[in-house]
Amino acid sequence: MKLFFKFLQIAIFVLPMIAMRQDKPLKVIFFGDSITQAGVNPTGYITQMGEMLKAKNQSNQYELIGAGIGGNKVYDLYLRLEDDVLSKKPDVVFIYVGINDVWHKASSGTGTDPDKYVKFYEALIKKMKAQNIRVIVCTPTVIGERTDNSNQHDGDLNQYSKLIREIASRNSLQLCDLRKHFADHLIQNNPENKEKGILTTDRVHLTDAGNKFLAEKMLEALVQK
Amino acid sequence: MKLFFKFLQIAIFVLPMIAMRQDKPLKVIFFGDSITQAGVNPTGYITQMGEMLKAKNQSNQYELIGAGIGGNKVYDLYLRLEDDVLSKKPDVVFIYVGINDVWHKASSGTGTDPDKYVKFYEALIKKMKAQNIRVIVCTPTVIGERTDNSNQHDGDLNQYSKLIREIASRNSLQLCDLRKHFADHLIQNNPENKEKGILTTDRVHLTDAGNKFLAEKMLEALVQK
Amino acid sequence: MKLFFKFLQIAIFVLPMIAMRQDKPLKVIFFGDSITQAGVNPTGYITQMGEMLKAKNQSNQYELIGAGIGGNKVYDLYLRLEDDVLSKKPDVVFIYVGINDVWHKASSGTGTDPDKYVKFYEALIKKMKAQNIRVIVCTPTVIGERTDNSNQHDGDLNQYSKLIREIASRNSLQLCDLRKHFADHLIQNNPENKEKGILTTDRVHLTDAGNKFLAEKMLEALVQK
Amino acid sequence: MKLFFKFLQIAIFVLPMIAMRQDKPLKVIFFGDSITQAGVNPTGYITQMGEMLKAKNQSNQYELIGAGIGGNKVYDLYLRLEDDVLSKKPDVVFIYVGINDVWHKASSGTGTDPDKYVKFYEALIKKMKAQNIRVIVCTPTVIGERTDNSNQHDGDLNQYSKLIREIASRNSLQLCDLRKHFADHLIQNNPENKEKGILTTDRVHLTDAGNKFLAEKMLEALVQK
Repeated sequence: MKLFFKFLQIAIFVLPMIAMRQDKPLKVIFFGDSITQAGVNPTGYITQMGEMLKAKNQSNQYELIGAGIGGNKVYDLYLRLEDDVLSKKPDVVFIYVGINDVWHKASSGTGTDPDKYVKFYEALIKKMKAQNIRVIVCTPTVIGERTDNSNQHDGDLNQYSKLIREIASRNSLQLCDLRKHFADHLIQNNPENKEKGILTTDRVHLTDAGNKFLAEKMLEALVQK
Repeated sequence: MKLFFKFLQIAIFVLPMIAMRQDKPLKVIFFGDSITQAGVNPTGYITQMGEMLKAKNQSNQYELIGAGIGGNKVYDLYLRLEDDVLSKKPDVVFIYVGINDVWHKASSGTGTDPDKYVKFYEALIKKMKAQNIRVIVCTPTVIGERTDNSNQHDGDLNQYSKLIREIASRNSLQLCDLRKHFADHLIQNNPENKEKGILTTDRVHLTDAGNKFLAEKMLEALVQK
Repeated sequence: MKLFFKFLQIAIFVLPMIAMRQDKPLKVIFFGDSITQAGVNPTGYITQMGEMLKAKNQSNQYELIGAGIGGNKVYDLYLRLEDDVLSKKPDVVFIYVGINDVWHKASSGTGTDPDKYVKFYEALIKKMKAQNIRVIVCTPTVIGERTDNSNQHDGDLNQYSKLIREIASRNSLQLCDLRKHFADHLIQNNPENKEKGILTTDRVHLTDAGNKFLAEKMLEALVQK
Repeated sequence: MKLFFKFLQIAIFVLPMIAMRQDKPLKVIFFGDSITQAGVNPTGYITQMGEMLKAKNQSNQYELIGAGIGGNKVYDLYLRLEDDVLSKKPDVVFIYVGINDVWHKASSGTGTDPDKYVKFYEALIKKMKAQNIRVIVCTPTVIGERTDNSNQHDGDLNQYSKLIREIASRNSLQLCDLRKHFADHLIQNNPENKEKGILTTDRVHLTDAGNKFLAEKMLEALVQK
């Protein structure tokens, strides 16, 4: 009899959770640029995250959705926020944008000023928070893998990363500090101070190893409470 | 008796309209950059439009509202569209933006690519049309007053102006072709092919004469049906 | 008797000139960027000029030498002036540079300011004149073939072309106004206002037709007195 | 007798050299941009170096000559090398250029590509060495005083500094590593990580303290053997 009550007690708490879990996996959207667009490729970081979850028998707990478009800057995300994120009612959104905001300054004269970068970034966050989305903000990775801050855009990338860390702090958001993760990894794994070839193929876009590394770091952030 | 009812019928419909006209002037918002921000200064183009309307005894028919912020590009307008335009329920909106989208390419590496310029421009229009606003689109004026297409940014300004003309046509909107108006005026009034000093003080921002000229052209567009 | 002396007089002056002409062809150097580098290819403009001269049986009167290097701007020509031009003792030099000086402003942030463009251009001329070289200056052709001044860099290219025309005039040099020649040709032959495909393959580098057209215009300039 | 001649022989060669030394101070030219142009102002770094030498009673041993022009990049130095340096027959030349080569990329699209920077730099050195000038090469100081590599141009400045260190090493030249000196000083003296106000007034041009610091470092380099 006691046992029956115990079972009942457990059932009352656990069964609904199992039900919820089975019915509705956590919907996670990756909102970003070409790196994220390539993230759903066979060896892309989103695909690899899915495989990592499968290996842990947690596939059914997460629905991973790529929402990356090549060349996107922060204001492009803002323009398609409703269609590509809000309307999909996600539980979690990773915002991973900033490389083009810096890079395009030199390559086509169409980058984003830092003050406007922050303005649009916070406008994104405000609308997501209004929909109770758990937002995880990521610092931009790299444009060049040299480890001595001598890649052309390092100063700007460091600056924009600081701005994102401040945004995370100011808005009490979870930070996935990809730029720091990459720097720490490269210090160990790029002894020749090469410009590319370790985590990136072309200074920006990821090798399979780069995608794997990113997948690990984002998964850590995702499961972290 | 029949006549009386007919009169009554008309009165029921028409009198309120007359009343409405007197009670509610047409609300006109000028949505733009630093030129529009300066438009509400004592000799600014919006102020001068107001004086022109007063001289015609039509002051009470129009409410002119400046909504210009220095340095704004098309995506900045999109970010503040709700707060600075839609929430104010205007009847008419002049969109006058594009100079910084071109200019900042060279001066800070933060201009706007033409395809994105169009994308944000049409997003602005879509939201305004959904609120039944009469939208008047303006081509960007000048960065330099030389008349032989030898100002540094003439190629780009001509390109963006063509894009706006196409937007107007595609969306059946009224066009206020300021760049053409300026070109026509300068051909007549800049025989020495000077870079500034006729309609602008500094190649971009308007002299009193420039503001007056702009006021005339915008007023023509406003009263035109 | 008088006639004999007259004949003798003429012979004294003319015969050596004929002799010289036959012994020593006029050495012509084309000094420029990637367009000139490609000029010595099988269908390049310098090769085609050679064939045009051959068709007129004048091959032996001219030695045509390409001295173009991809990506060169006016100051790059200055750096290699001694090695690639002066030391070769040419009779004639075509200077054809300016496209990269304008283009690289947007594509890599490393174009040339107009005042410095003029400064280096005149430094080139001064050193060539000191060696009695006949200098022919060329205006830059195109970055984009649209005929309504709506190619991004048209304003700047028009400006730099004016600067070259002024340099020619100020230094009493022969002008080969390629930009004007291209514009006149495209007005006739680009009715659809296409960006490329008539004289250029990619808005800048020349099609076979473009090389032929350039060869004709340069040959006209070369034989002109 | 033999000894007397030997002595005489030595005297003939050595005495004038000693005399020359006393009569002819070491001629030192500072070859650079606006920072060097301002170096001859009352509190400029060249003026302060002069005062430091005076305090050590060594004024008569050095003639310090400023040859800085605002906005200069490496190729501008090359253009005026003959007139402003070689023709003056200096004993020592400080080359201090690079800030504009980096900075103008963003501010006007007219910076200098790194490979061309090296090319012109080595062309400068080659001509100076041919005239037996002792060349001291300086790394560029700063565009922004933040100490965490988050000034916009830090990546590029670090890159160009490395290129200069390689040039020094490859050409066996003395290096005055101003960028390193500034970094070391700012780590100690800029605890708030300010962008300007310690050694610079505006992120680039020097405060009196900045000029003093520069003067000390250059003087160290000058007297060093």
